[in-house]
Amino acid sequence: MIDPRRLRELKRLAESLGILAPISVNIDWSLLDCALVHPTFSQTYNNDRLEFLGDSVLRLATTLFLRQEFNHRSLGEMAALRSNLVSDQTLAAIAETYELDLYLVASESVKLEPKARQTRLADALEAVMGALYLSTNDLNLVCPWLYPHLRRIAIALLEKPALGNFKEALQEFTQAHWKKLPEYRNREIDPILHIFQAEVWLNDQFWGGGEGKSIKAAQQEAAAIALESIKASLAN
Amino acid sequence: MIDPRRLRELKRLAESLGILAPISVNIDWSLLDCALVHPTFSQTYNNDRLEFLGDSVLRLATTLFLRQEFNHRSLGEMAALRSNLVSDQTLAAIAETYELDLYLVASESVKLEPKARQTRLADALEAVMGALYLSTNDLNLVCPWLYPHLRRIAIALLEKPALGNFKEALQEFTQAHWKKLPEYRNREIDPILHIFQAEVWLNDQFWGGGEGKSIKAAQQEAAAIALESIKASLAN
Repeated sequence: MIDPRRLRELKRLAESLGILAPISVNIDWSLLDCALVHPTFSQTYNNDRLEFLGDSVLRLATTLFLRQEFNHRSLGEMAALRSNLVSDQTLAAIAETYELDLYLVASESVKLEPKARQTRLADALEAVMGALYLSTNDLNLVCPWLYPHLRRIAIALLEKPALGNFKEALQEFTQAHWKKLPEYRNREIDPILHIFQAEVWLNDQFWGGGEGKSIKAAQQEAAAIALESIKASLAN
Repeated sequence: MIDPRRLRELKRLAESLGILAPISVNIDWSLLDCALVHPTFSQTYNNDRLEFLGDSVLRLATTLFLRQEFNHRSLGEMAALRSNLVSDQTLAAIAETYELDLYLVASESVKLEPKARQTRLADALEAVMGALYLSTNDLNLVCPWLYPHLRRIAIALLEKPALGNFKEALQEFTQAHWKKLPEYRNREIDPILHIFQAEVWLNDQFWGGGEGKSIKAAQQEAAAIALESIKASLAN
Protein backbone atom coordinates (compact mmCIF):
# COMPACT_ATOMS: atom_id res chain seq x y z
CA MET A 1 0.00 0.00 0.00
CA ILE A 2 1.26 3.41 -0.93
CA ASP A 3 0.72 6.29 1.40
CA PRO A 4 -2.20 8.36 -0.01
CA ARG A 5 -0.13 11.56 -0.03
CA ARG A 6 2.64 9.87 -2.02
CA LEU A 7 0.03 8.45 -4.42
CA ARG A 8 -1.34 11.94 -5.03
CA GLU A 9 2.20 13.10 -5.73
CA LEU A 10 2.83 10.26 -8.20
CA LYS A 11 -0.47 10.98 -9.94
CA ARG A 12 0.62 14.57 -10.33
CA LEU A 13 3.81 13.34 -12.03
CA ALA A 14 1.81 11.00 -14.30
CA GLU A 15 -0.38 13.93 -15.20
CA SER A 16 2.58 16.08 -16.17
CA LEU A 17 3.88 13.17 -18.28
CA GLY A 18 0.51 13.20 -20.03
CA ILE A 19 -0.21 9.59 -19.13
CA LEU A 20 -2.98 10.02 -16.58
CA ALA A 21 -6.55 8.97 -17.36
CA PRO A 22 -7.59 6.78 -19.12
CA ILE A 23 -4.22 5.15 -19.83
CA SER A 24 -3.07 5.53 -16.22
CA VAL A 25 -5.28 2.64 -15.09
CA ASN A 26 -2.32 0.54 -16.16
CA ILE A 27 0.34 2.29 -14.11
CA ASP A 28 1.80 0.15 -11.37
CA TRP A 29 2.02 2.84 -8.69
CA SER A 30 4.17 0.74 -6.36
CA LEU A 31 6.79 0.33 -9.07
CA LEU A 32 6.63 4.03 -9.89
CA ASP A 33 7.09 4.78 -6.20
CA CYS A 34 10.17 2.53 -6.06
CA ALA A 35 11.58 4.19 -9.21
CA LEU A 36 11.67 7.44 -7.28
CA VAL A 37 13.63 6.25 -4.26
CA HIS A 38 17.35 6.98 -4.42
CA PRO A 39 19.79 4.33 -3.11
CA THR A 40 21.02 6.79 -0.46
CA PHE A 41 17.58 6.60 1.15
CA SER A 42 17.41 2.83 1.45
CA GLN A 43 19.80 0.01 0.59
CA THR A 44 16.98 -2.46 0.03
CA TYR A 45 14.07 -0.45 -1.36
CA ASN A 46 15.43 1.79 -4.09
CA ASN A 47 15.53 2.39 -7.83
CA ASP A 48 18.81 0.71 -8.80
CA ARG A 49 17.24 -2.39 -10.39
CA LEU A 50 14.54 -0.41 -12.17
CA GLU A 51 17.29 1.83 -13.54
CA PHE A 52 19.17 -1.26 -14.81
CA LEU A 53 16.01 -2.17 -16.73
CA GLY A 54 15.10 1.38 -17.70
CA ASP A 55 18.45 1.84 -19.41
CA SER A 56 17.43 -0.87 -21.92
CA VAL A 57 13.90 0.48 -22.23
CA LEU A 58 15.28 3.92 -23.08
CA ARG A 59 17.70 2.48 -25.62
CA LEU A 60 14.98 0.56 -27.43
CA ALA A 61 12.51 3.46 -27.37
CA THR A 62 15.20 5.79 -28.73
CA THR A 63 16.19 3.39 -31.50
CA LEU A 64 12.54 2.96 -32.54
CA PHE A 65 12.14 6.72 -32.51
CA LEU A 66 15.20 7.22 -34.73
CA ARG A 67 13.98 4.51 -37.10
CA GLN A 68 10.59 6.18 -37.30
CA GLU A 69 11.72 9.76 -37.79
CA PHE A 70 15.37 9.81 -38.90
CA ASN A 71 15.70 6.68 -40.99
CA HIS A 72 16.81 8.77 -43.97
CA ARG A 73 20.02 9.59 -42.08
CA SER A 74 23.12 7.44 -42.34
CA LEU A 75 23.54 4.69 -39.79
CA GLY A 76 26.61 6.48 -38.43
CA GLU A 77 24.57 9.61 -37.79
CA MET A 78 21.82 7.55 -36.17
CA ALA A 79 24.37 5.89 -33.89
CA ALA A 80 25.85 9.26 -32.95
CA LEU A 81 22.35 10.65 -32.30
CA ARG A 82 21.47 7.63 -30.18
CA SER A 83 24.55 7.87 -27.99
CA ASN A 84 23.74 11.52 -27.41
CA LEU A 85 20.01 10.98 -26.78
CA VAL A 86 20.58 8.25 -24.19
CA SER A 87 23.30 10.19 -22.36
CA ASP A 88 22.98 11.26 -18.73
CA GLN A 89 23.11 14.86 -19.82
CA THR A 90 20.10 14.54 -22.13
CA LEU A 91 18.17 12.46 -19.62
CA ALA A 92 18.81 14.90 -16.80
CA ALA A 93 17.61 17.76 -19.00
CA ILE A 94 14.38 15.89 -19.73
CA ALA A 95 13.97 15.05 -16.04
CA GLU A 96 14.33 18.76 -15.19
CA THR A 97 11.32 19.61 -17.33
CA TYR A 98 9.21 17.48 -14.98
CA GLU A 99 11.00 18.70 -11.83
CA LEU A 100 11.71 15.05 -11.12
CA ASP A 101 13.90 15.93 -8.15
CA LEU A 102 10.80 17.00 -6.25
CA TYR A 103 9.41 13.46 -6.47
CA LEU A 104 12.68 11.74 -5.61
CA VAL A 105 13.09 10.40 -2.10
CA ALA A 106 16.78 10.65 -1.20
CA SER A 107 18.95 11.34 1.80
CA GLU A 108 19.12 15.03 2.63
CA SER A 109 22.90 15.07 2.19
CA VAL A 110 22.66 13.84 -1.39
CA LYS A 111 20.07 16.42 -2.29
CA LEU A 112 22.57 19.07 -1.24
CA GLU A 113 25.25 17.77 -3.60
CA PRO A 114 24.65 19.71 -6.77
CA LYS A 115 27.33 17.84 -8.67
CA ALA A 116 25.65 14.46 -8.33
CA ARG A 117 22.42 15.97 -9.57
CA GLN A 118 22.79 14.99 -13.22
CA THR A 119 23.36 11.29 -12.52
CA ARG A 120 20.64 11.25 -9.89
CA LEU A 121 18.08 12.73 -12.27
CA ALA A 122 19.15 10.58 -15.22
CA ASP A 123 19.01 7.42 -13.11
CA ALA A 124 15.60 8.32 -11.73
CA LEU A 125 14.18 8.98 -15.18
CA GLU A 126 15.52 5.65 -16.44
CA ALA A 127 13.98 3.94 -13.42
CA VAL A 128 10.64 5.63 -14.19
CA MET A 129 10.87 4.20 -17.72
CA GLY A 130 11.57 0.77 -16.23
CA ALA A 131 8.51 1.04 -13.97
CA LEU A 132 6.28 2.22 -16.81
CA TYR A 133 7.50 -0.54 -19.12
CA LEU A 134 6.75 -3.20 -16.52
CA SER A 135 3.29 -1.71 -15.96
CA THR A 136 2.13 -2.67 -19.47
CA ASN A 137 4.93 -4.89 -20.83
CA ASP A 138 5.34 -2.54 -23.73
CA LEU A 139 6.39 1.03 -24.51
CA ASN A 140 2.85 2.49 -24.51
CA LEU A 141 3.38 4.51 -21.34
CA VAL A 142 6.87 5.65 -22.36
CA CYS A 143 6.83 6.79 -25.99
CA PRO A 144 3.99 9.38 -25.75
CA TRP A 145 5.98 11.74 -23.51
CA LEU A 146 9.52 10.67 -24.45
CA TYR A 147 9.29 11.07 -28.23
CA PRO A 148 8.55 14.83 -28.24
CA HIS A 149 11.69 15.39 -26.12
CA LEU A 150 13.81 13.17 -28.36
CA ARG A 151 12.47 14.96 -31.44
CA ARG A 152 13.28 18.39 -30.03
CA ILE A 153 16.77 17.36 -28.94
CA ALA A 154 17.58 15.42 -32.13
CA ILE A 155 16.54 18.38 -34.27
CA ALA A 156 18.66 20.71 -32.18
CA LEU A 157 21.66 18.38 -32.55
CA LEU A 158 21.22 18.15 -36.31
CA GLU A 159 20.73 21.89 -36.67
CA LYS A 160 24.16 22.63 -35.30
CA PRO A 161 26.70 23.86 -37.84
CA ALA A 162 28.26 20.41 -37.93
CA LEU A 163 24.84 18.88 -38.77
CA GLY A 164 25.31 15.89 -36.53
CA ASN A 165 28.97 15.59 -37.39
CA PHE A 166 30.27 15.31 -33.87
CA LYS A 167 33.96 15.39 -34.77
CA GLU A 168 33.43 18.73 -36.47
CA ALA A 169 31.28 20.01 -33.61
CA LEU A 170 33.88 18.95 -31.03
CA GLN A 171 36.68 20.58 -33.00
CA GLU A 172 34.79 23.85 -33.25
CA PHE A 173 34.08 23.77 -29.54
CA THR A 174 37.63 23.07 -28.37
CA GLN A 175 39.09 25.61 -30.77
CA ALA A 176 36.69 28.26 -29.53
CA HIS A 177 37.46 27.51 -25.89
CA TRP A 178 41.15 26.61 -25.84
CA LYS A 179 42.43 27.22 -29.36
CA LYS A 180 43.34 23.54 -29.39
CA LEU A 181 42.28 20.50 -31.38
CA PRO A 182 41.15 17.34 -29.62
CA GLU A 183 43.55 14.43 -29.92
CA TYR A 184 42.19 11.08 -31.12
CA ARG A 185 43.87 7.90 -29.98
CA ASN A 186 42.72 5.02 -32.13
CA ARG A 187 43.36 1.33 -32.01
CA GLU A 188 42.03 -1.73 -33.67
CA ILE A 189 40.76 -3.81 -30.77
CA ASP A 190 39.93 -6.75 -32.96
CA PRO A 191 42.14 -7.03 -36.03
CA ILE A 192 40.12 -10.00 -37.29
CA LEU A 193 36.65 -8.52 -37.05
CA HIS A 194 37.94 -4.99 -37.73
CA ILE A 195 36.53 -3.34 -34.66
CA PHE A 196 38.09 -0.05 -33.75
CA GLN A 197 38.19 1.97 -30.58
CA ALA A 198 38.84 5.69 -30.45
CA GLU A 199 39.49 7.96 -27.50
CA VAL A 200 39.33 11.70 -27.27
CA TRP A 201 42.06 13.38 -25.22
CA LEU A 202 42.37 17.06 -24.50
CA ASN A 203 44.46 18.95 -21.95
CA ASP A 204 45.99 15.62 -20.85
CA GLN A 205 42.59 14.28 -19.94
CA PHE A 206 40.44 11.52 -21.37
CA TRP A 207 36.98 12.80 -22.33
CA GLY A 208 35.18 10.02 -24.14
CA GLY A 209 35.56 6.78 -26.02
CA GLY A 210 33.75 5.07 -28.85
CA GLU A 211 33.75 1.81 -30.72
CA GLY A 212 32.83 0.99 -34.28
CA LYS A 213 33.49 -0.94 -37.42
CA SER A 214 35.67 1.85 -38.81
CA ILE A 215 38.01 4.40 -37.23
CA LYS A 216 35.64 7.12 -38.40
CA ALA A 217 32.60 5.53 -36.75
CA ALA A 218 34.52 5.01 -33.50
CA GLN A 219 35.74 8.62 -33.56
CA GLN A 220 32.25 9.99 -34.22
CA GLU A 221 30.91 8.17 -31.19
CA ALA A 222 33.86 9.21 -29.05
CA ALA A 223 33.48 12.82 -30.18
CA ALA A 224 29.76 12.87 -29.33
CA ILE A 225 30.48 11.64 -25.81
CA ALA A 226 33.51 13.89 -25.33
CA LEU A 227 31.59 16.96 -26.46
CA GLU A 228 28.95 16.29 -23.88
CA SER A 229 31.47 15.53 -21.09
CA ILE A 230 33.41 18.71 -21.81
CA LYS A 231 30.27 20.83 -21.82
CA ALA A 232 29.11 19.20 -18.58
CA SER A 233 32.47 19.87 -16.92
CA LEU A 234 32.31 23.53 -17.97
CA ALA A 235 28.75 23.82 -16.65
CA ASN A 236 29.77 22.62 -13.19
CA MET B 1 6.58 -9.75 -52.86
CA ILE B 2 8.91 -12.41 -51.63
CA ASP B 3 9.96 -15.19 -53.89
CA PRO B 4 7.91 -18.30 -52.92
CA ARG B 5 11.04 -20.41 -52.45
CA ARG B 6 12.54 -17.83 -50.10
CA LEU B 7 9.25 -17.65 -48.20
CA ARG B 8 9.28 -21.42 -47.69
CA GLU B 9 12.84 -21.09 -46.41
CA LEU B 10 11.87 -18.32 -43.96
CA LYS B 11 8.89 -20.35 -42.77
CA ARG B 12 11.24 -23.22 -42.06
CA LEU B 13 13.35 -20.88 -39.92
CA ALA B 14 10.25 -19.60 -38.09
CA GLU B 15 9.28 -23.20 -37.47
CA SER B 16 12.65 -24.01 -35.95
CA LEU B 17 12.33 -20.90 -33.76
CA GLY B 18 9.02 -22.34 -32.58
CA ILE B 19 7.07 -19.28 -33.71
CA LEU B 20 5.18 -20.70 -36.66
CA ALA B 21 1.40 -21.19 -36.46
CA PRO B 22 -0.68 -19.66 -34.98
CA ILE B 23 1.60 -16.84 -33.80
CA SER B 24 3.35 -16.58 -37.18
CA VAL B 25 0.39 -14.78 -38.74
CA ASN B 26 2.06 -11.71 -37.29
CA ILE B 27 5.48 -12.20 -38.81
CA ASP B 28 6.42 -9.56 -41.36
CA TRP B 29 8.12 -11.85 -43.87
CA SER B 30 9.62 -8.98 -45.88
CA LEU B 31 11.37 -7.66 -42.79
CA LEU B 32 12.56 -11.15 -41.89
CA ASP B 33 13.87 -11.53 -45.42
CA CYS B 34 15.78 -8.26 -45.14
CA ALA B 35 17.20 -9.31 -41.74
CA LEU B 36 18.89 -12.19 -43.50
CA VAL B 37 20.68 -10.21 -46.21
CA HIS B 38 24.31 -9.42 -45.42
CA PRO B 39 25.68 -5.97 -46.39
CA THR B 40 28.20 -7.65 -48.74
CA PHE B 41 25.29 -8.81 -50.89
CA SER B 42 23.69 -5.38 -51.34
CA GLN B 43 24.59 -1.88 -50.20
CA THR B 44 20.96 -0.75 -50.20
CA TYR B 45 18.90 -3.80 -49.25
CA ASN B 46 20.57 -5.41 -46.24
CA ASN B 47 20.29 -6.04 -42.51
CA ASP B 48 22.42 -3.21 -41.09
CA ARG B 49 19.51 -1.07 -39.87
CA LEU B 50 17.56 -4.00 -38.50
CA GLU B 51 20.71 -5.02 -36.63
CA PHE B 52 20.97 -1.49 -35.17
CA LEU B 53 17.44 -1.97 -33.83
CA GLY B 54 17.88 -5.63 -32.89
CA ASP B 55 20.79 -4.76 -30.64
CA SER B 56 18.38 -2.78 -28.42
CA VAL B 57 15.68 -5.43 -28.66
CA LEU B 58 18.15 -8.06 -27.47
CA ARG B 59 19.34 -5.87 -24.62
CA LEU B 60 15.83 -5.24 -23.35
CA ALA B 61 14.77 -8.88 -23.72
CA THR B 62 17.90 -9.99 -21.85
CA THR B 63 17.38 -7.50 -19.03
CA LEU B 64 13.75 -8.58 -18.63
CA PHE B 65 14.89 -12.19 -18.60
CA LEU B 66 17.47 -11.50 -15.88
CA ARG B 67 14.91 -9.60 -13.84
CA GLN B 68 12.47 -12.48 -14.15
CA GLU B 69 14.85 -15.32 -13.34
CA PHE B 70 17.97 -13.95 -11.65
CA ASN B 71 16.67 -11.02 -9.64
CA HIS B 72 18.03 -12.60 -6.45
CA ARG B 73 21.55 -12.01 -7.76
CA SER B 74 23.47 -8.80 -7.07
CA LEU B 75 23.17 -6.03 -9.61
CA GLY B 76 26.89 -6.41 -10.40
CA GLU B 77 26.38 -10.06 -11.25
CA MET B 78 23.35 -9.23 -13.36
CA ALA B 79 25.36 -6.60 -15.26
CA ALA B 80 28.19 -9.08 -15.83
CA LEU B 81 25.70 -11.72 -16.99
CA ARG B 82 24.05 -9.23 -19.32
CA SER B 83 27.28 -8.16 -20.98
CA ASN B 84 28.10 -11.81 -21.55
CA LEU B 85 24.63 -12.78 -22.80
CA VAL B 86 24.47 -9.96 -25.37
CA SER B 87 28.01 -10.60 -26.65
CA ASP B 88 28.72 -11.59 -30.25
CA GLN B 89 30.11 -14.87 -29.02
CA THR B 90 26.89 -15.85 -27.24
CA LEU B 91 24.71 -14.64 -30.11
CA ALA B 92 26.73 -16.52 -32.70
CA ALA B 93 26.42 -19.70 -30.63
CA ILE B 94 22.64 -19.27 -30.49
CA ALA B 95 22.54 -18.56 -34.23
CA GLU B 96 24.47 -21.78 -34.88
CA THR B 97 21.74 -23.84 -33.23
CA TYR B 98 19.38 -22.64 -35.98
CA GLU B 99 22.00 -22.95 -38.73
CA LEU B 100 21.30 -19.29 -39.46
CA ASP B 101 24.12 -19.12 -41.99
CA LEU B 102 22.05 -21.28 -44.36
CA TYR B 103 19.36 -18.57 -44.48
CA LEU B 104 21.77 -15.68 -44.85
CA VAL B 105 22.20 -14.17 -48.29
CA ALA B 106 25.77 -12.91 -48.57
CA SER B 107 28.52 -12.61 -51.14
CA GLU B 108 30.28 -15.90 -51.78
CA SER B 109 33.64 -14.46 -50.73
CA VAL B 110 32.33 -13.52 -47.28
CA LYS B 111 30.86 -16.95 -46.71
CA LEU B 112 34.34 -18.36 -47.23
CA GLU B 113 35.87 -16.16 -44.51
CA PRO B 114 35.58 -18.29 -41.40
CA LYS B 115 36.93 -15.54 -39.17
CA ALA B 116 34.12 -13.11 -39.92
CA ARG B 117 31.60 -15.84 -39.20
CA GLN B 118 30.96 -14.90 -35.57
CA THR B 119 30.11 -11.26 -36.30
CA ARG B 120 28.08 -12.20 -39.33
CA LEU B 121 25.96 -14.67 -37.37
CA ALA B 122 25.58 -12.36 -34.36
CA ASP B 123 24.56 -9.43 -36.57
CA ALA B 124 22.05 -11.58 -38.47
CA LEU B 125 20.48 -12.87 -35.27
CA GLU B 126 20.16 -9.32 -33.92
CA ALA B 127 18.57 -8.27 -37.22
CA VAL B 128 16.11 -11.16 -36.93
CA MET B 129 15.16 -9.88 -33.47
CA GLY B 130 14.68 -6.40 -34.95
CA ALA B 131 12.39 -7.79 -37.66
CA LEU B 132 10.38 -9.86 -35.19
CA TYR B 133 10.01 -6.92 -32.81
CA LEU B 134 8.70 -4.68 -35.59
CA SER B 135 6.24 -7.40 -36.65
CA THR B 136 4.25 -7.12 -33.41
CA ASN B 137 5.68 -4.02 -31.69
CA ASP B 138 6.50 -6.11 -28.67
CA LEU B 139 8.74 -8.99 -27.62
CA ASN B 140 6.14 -11.73 -28.14
CA LEU B 141 7.94 -13.27 -31.11
CA VAL B 142 11.36 -12.96 -29.50
CA CYS B 143 11.19 -14.15 -25.88
CA PRO B 144 9.70 -17.64 -26.49
CA TRP B 145 12.79 -18.94 -28.30
CA LEU B 146 15.42 -16.58 -26.82
CA TYR B 147 14.75 -17.18 -23.12
CA PRO B 148 15.58 -20.92 -23.09
CA HIS B 149 18.97 -20.12 -24.65
CA LEU B 150 19.64 -17.31 -22.18
CA ARG B 151 18.64 -19.59 -19.31
CA ARG B 152 20.96 -22.37 -20.41
CA ILE B 153 23.88 -19.99 -20.98
CA ALA B 154 23.33 -17.99 -17.76
CA ILE B 155 23.22 -21.18 -15.71
CA ALA B 156 26.42 -22.39 -17.35
CA LEU B 157 28.11 -19.06 -16.59
CA LEU B 158 27.02 -19.14 -12.97
CA GLU B 159 28.06 -22.77 -12.56
CA LYS B 160 31.67 -21.96 -13.31
CA PRO B 161 34.02 -22.11 -10.33
CA ALA B 162 34.04 -18.32 -10.15
CA LEU B 163 30.20 -18.28 -9.97
CA GLY B 164 29.83 -15.31 -12.24
CA ASN B 165 32.89 -13.58 -10.84
CA PHE B 166 34.53 -12.73 -14.12
CA LYS B 167 37.72 -11.31 -12.62
CA GLU B 168 38.34 -14.61 -10.89
CA ALA B 169 37.38 -16.59 -14.00
CA LEU B 170 39.71 -14.51 -16.17
CA GLN B 171 42.57 -14.89 -13.71
CA GLU B 172 42.16 -18.65 -13.62
CA PHE B 173 42.08 -18.78 -17.39
CA THR B 174 45.17 -16.65 -18.02
CA GLN B 175 47.14 -18.44 -15.32
CA ALA B 176 46.26 -21.81 -16.78
CA HIS B 177 47.24 -20.72 -20.30
CA TRP B 178 50.20 -18.41 -19.82
CA LYS B 179 51.03 -18.52 -16.11
CA LYS B 180 50.34 -14.78 -16.09
CA LEU B 181 47.84 -12.49 -14.43
CA PRO B 182 45.81 -10.02 -16.48
CA GLU B 183 46.74 -6.39 -15.96
CA TYR B 184 43.96 -3.93 -15.14
CA ARG B 185 44.38 -0.30 -16.15
CA ASN B 186 41.83 1.79 -14.34
CA ARG B 187 40.94 5.41 -14.52
CA GLU B 188 38.22 7.64 -13.21
CA ILE B 189 36.69 9.07 -16.37
CA ASP B 190 34.42 11.37 -14.47
CA PRO B 191 35.81 12.47 -11.11
CA ILE B 192 32.61 14.31 -10.30
CA LEU B 193 30.11 11.58 -11.00
CA HIS B 194 32.58 8.85 -9.99
CA ILE B 195 32.46 6.85 -13.15
CA PHE B 196 35.35 4.48 -13.66
CA GLN B 197 36.76 2.77 -16.70
CA ALA B 198 38.87 -0.36 -16.58
CA GLU B 199 40.85 -2.08 -19.28
CA VAL B 200 42.26 -5.58 -19.35
CA TRP B 201 45.73 -5.94 -20.88
CA LEU B 202 47.62 -9.16 -21.37
CA ASN B 203 50.69 -9.97 -23.47
CA ASP B 204 50.89 -6.29 -24.46
CA GLN B 205 47.43 -6.43 -25.97
CA PHE B 206 44.13 -4.83 -25.01
CA TRP B 207 41.40 -7.44 -24.55
CA GLY B 208 38.36 -5.67 -23.17
CA GLY B 209 37.08 -2.60 -21.40
CA GLY B 210 34.30 -1.84 -18.96
CA GLU B 211 32.68 1.09 -17.26
CA GLY B 212 30.97 1.36 -13.92
CA LYS B 213 30.27 3.32 -10.80
CA SER B 214 33.13 1.64 -8.97
CA ILE B 215 36.52 0.31 -10.05
CA LYS B 216 35.32 -3.17 -9.15
CA ALA B 217 32.20 -2.92 -11.32
CA ALA B 218 34.22 -1.58 -14.25
CA GLN B 219 36.77 -4.38 -13.85
CA GLN B 220 34.08 -7.07 -13.68
CA GLU B 221 32.62 -5.89 -16.95
CA ALA B 222 36.05 -5.57 -18.57
CA ALA B 223 36.99 -9.06 -17.35
CA ALA B 224 33.79 -10.60 -18.77
CA ILE B 225 34.51 -9.11 -22.18
CA ALA B 226 38.24 -9.90 -22.08
CA LEU B 227 37.58 -13.52 -21.13
CA GLU B 228 35.34 -13.93 -24.12
CA SER B 229 37.75 -12.13 -26.52
CA ILE B 230 40.67 -14.27 -25.35
CA LYS B 231 38.70 -17.48 -25.74
CA ALA B 232 37.53 -16.40 -29.19
CA SER B 233 41.08 -15.58 -30.27
CA LEU B 234 42.27 -19.03 -29.10
CA ALA B 235 39.40 -20.71 -30.95
CA ASN B 236 40.39 -19.11 -34.25
